[in-house]
Amino acid sequence: MDEFALIDIIVDAMGDRAQGEWVHLGPGDDAAVITTTPGYDQVASIDVLVPDVHFPAKAPAFLIGYRALMVSLSDLAAMGASPRYCVVALTLNDAEDGSWLAELSRGMAVAARECGVYICGGNLTRGPLNIAVSVHGEVLRGGAVKRSGGRANDKLYVSGPLGGAGACVSQSKLLPVQLEAMSELQKAYYQPQARFDWQRELSLASCAIDISDGLLQDLTHLVNASGCGAQLIEENIPLVAGASTADALGSSDDYQLLFASEQNHPDAFCIGKLCTEKGIWLNGQLVDAQGYKHFHA
Amino acid sequence: MDEFALIDIIVDAMGDRAQGEWVHLGPGDDAAVITTTPGYDQVASIDVLVPDVHFPAKAPAFLIGYRALMVSLSDLAAMGASPRYCVVALTLNDAEDGSWLAELSRGMAVAARECGVYICGGNLTRGPLNIAVSVHGEVLRGGAVKRSGGRANDKLYVSGPLGGAGACVSQSKLLPVQLEAMSELQKAYYQPQARFDWQRELSLASCAIDISDGLLQDLTHLVNASGCGAQLIEENIPLVAGASTADALGSSDDYQLLFASEQNHPDAFCIGKLCTEKGIWLNGQLVDAQGYKHFHA
Repeated sequence: MDEFALIDIIVDAMGDRAQGEWVHLGPGDDAAVITTTPGYDQVASIDVLVPDVHFPAKAPAFLIGYRALMVSLSDLAAMGASPRYCVVALTLNDAEDGSWLAELSRGMAVAARECGVYICGGNLTRGPLNIAVSVHGEVLRGGAVKRSGGRANDKLYVSGPLGGAGACVSQSKLLPVQLEAMSELQKAYYQPQARFDWQRELSLASCAIDISDGLLQDLTHLVNASGCGAQLIEENIPLVAGASTADALGSSDDYQLLFASEQNHPDAFCIGKLCTEKGIWLNGQLVDAQGYKHFHA
Repeated sequence: MDEFALIDIIVDAMGDRAQGEWVHLGPGDDAAVITTTPGYDQVASIDVLVPDVHFPAKAPAFLIGYRALMVSLSDLAAMGASPRYCVVALTLNDAEDGSWLAELSRGMAVAARECGVYICGGNLTRGPLNIAVSVHGEVLRGGAVKRSGGRANDKLYVSGPLGGAGACVSQSKLLPVQLEAMSELQKAYYQPQARFDWQRELSLASCAIDISDGLLQDLTHLVNASGCGAQLIEENIPLVAGASTADALGSSDDYQLLFASEQNHPDAFCIGKLCTEKGIWLNGQLVDAQGYKHFHA
């Protein structure tokens, strides 16, 4: 199929998500044109998903597209930003035909609609399947919530239960998967939610990160950036039904937010606190961060 | 090698290009933070380069990195925008080791310095080699130069000689290549220049595009978007020494700018004009656009 016919499939699937409001010029020119809000900074991040690392190659294309957009947007949620637009680069095999691409695009469009963003540009190349999503949002000038602002004695919170995505992987339940009949663990893996609903709470946080590589690894990033340590209370770590503490600690890519704050956040789960002593302490025992790393030694 | 050790190599190579001026927060957090200029719109595009389609896999990594950034930034130049920042997603094989990555990053940093942009974020994944570059610039509100503004009788210009990159490919001169001893054709291919030096001239243009797929194909995009046709004068098409007209028409990815204007642009090459009658006419003969398409039928 011709490159331009494939682009038409994508733009069709995007519908009202290709252009509108702050996006004055969507796909079809050399670049998209976006108006920003006075007094706000731009926030930018890029993620890549490749088959059998970030999703099963045989998963429904709709879920691949939905998940690709959500996990990428999650980085903006972790900064306390409002999402605004994405540009997406697709590298496609011959195996990914027009109907596969239409479903992938439909999944992206649904996620974009749920988060209120536009997918205003992209690129299409032939090669081994690779999905790169560049995401862009806005945050009140000076209001970005970094990883580095945490202080000893700040309480440590997560925005929701953990371990569901990790359990789906560790229990080998990724496949088979049916769009209309997913288990709770499959929903945790395939349909994570970028937690923009926590933006107001995050504005009170001292530091934040989204959990994409397991609680321990992402907490390690947070405490290293903040120059402190953390004490976790194991029984306070909220778990998705069917997930173990090990799933939550080691491999959860649930895309819940992990943040520290001096304030009380009754809707969040308090799982411990930051402390002066370096390292991560689980019920008083020093632990190694075991989170999944894409590049092993 | 560990993911984080590789990221350190990249950030080291970026040096002063990772953060500064309008980029308040560079690599190392969930997202970068960028301040925009009041009264300006954002302009965004994404490109992907894969081996043996967009560059020879065996080319020096420095040139791959340099070229990847320049060809991506070229889309911003074609909008009349000022470049501001990039985020880069790298998918790397085992074959690309630390020294390869350092050279790739060094090439990107040199291109970034030449264009005055920051590479303020990225992503690293394991898989078949794939380089995605998301580029972002600014243009005075309402001042973006689109493909669609051309009118019959506008003069048609290119910003420089064409066909060099195409000739390098058609004459099989891509390899061997040595950084310090490149031929003119190799320089045209490996070291294209994003033509931000044409920004003032472009502000007078009715429409513009950068030539990434050959003059005929990119001119076709321009006239289709503008709802007109074009008359080319073959002998006016400026050629890189050693390139043929066929190289210029069919396969040049020289990243010169192609634009139409009512004005005179004495520093540009006038290659014809836009006309009411649809299609592209070369010395009065209707021609087919033969430009290279990544996705053949």
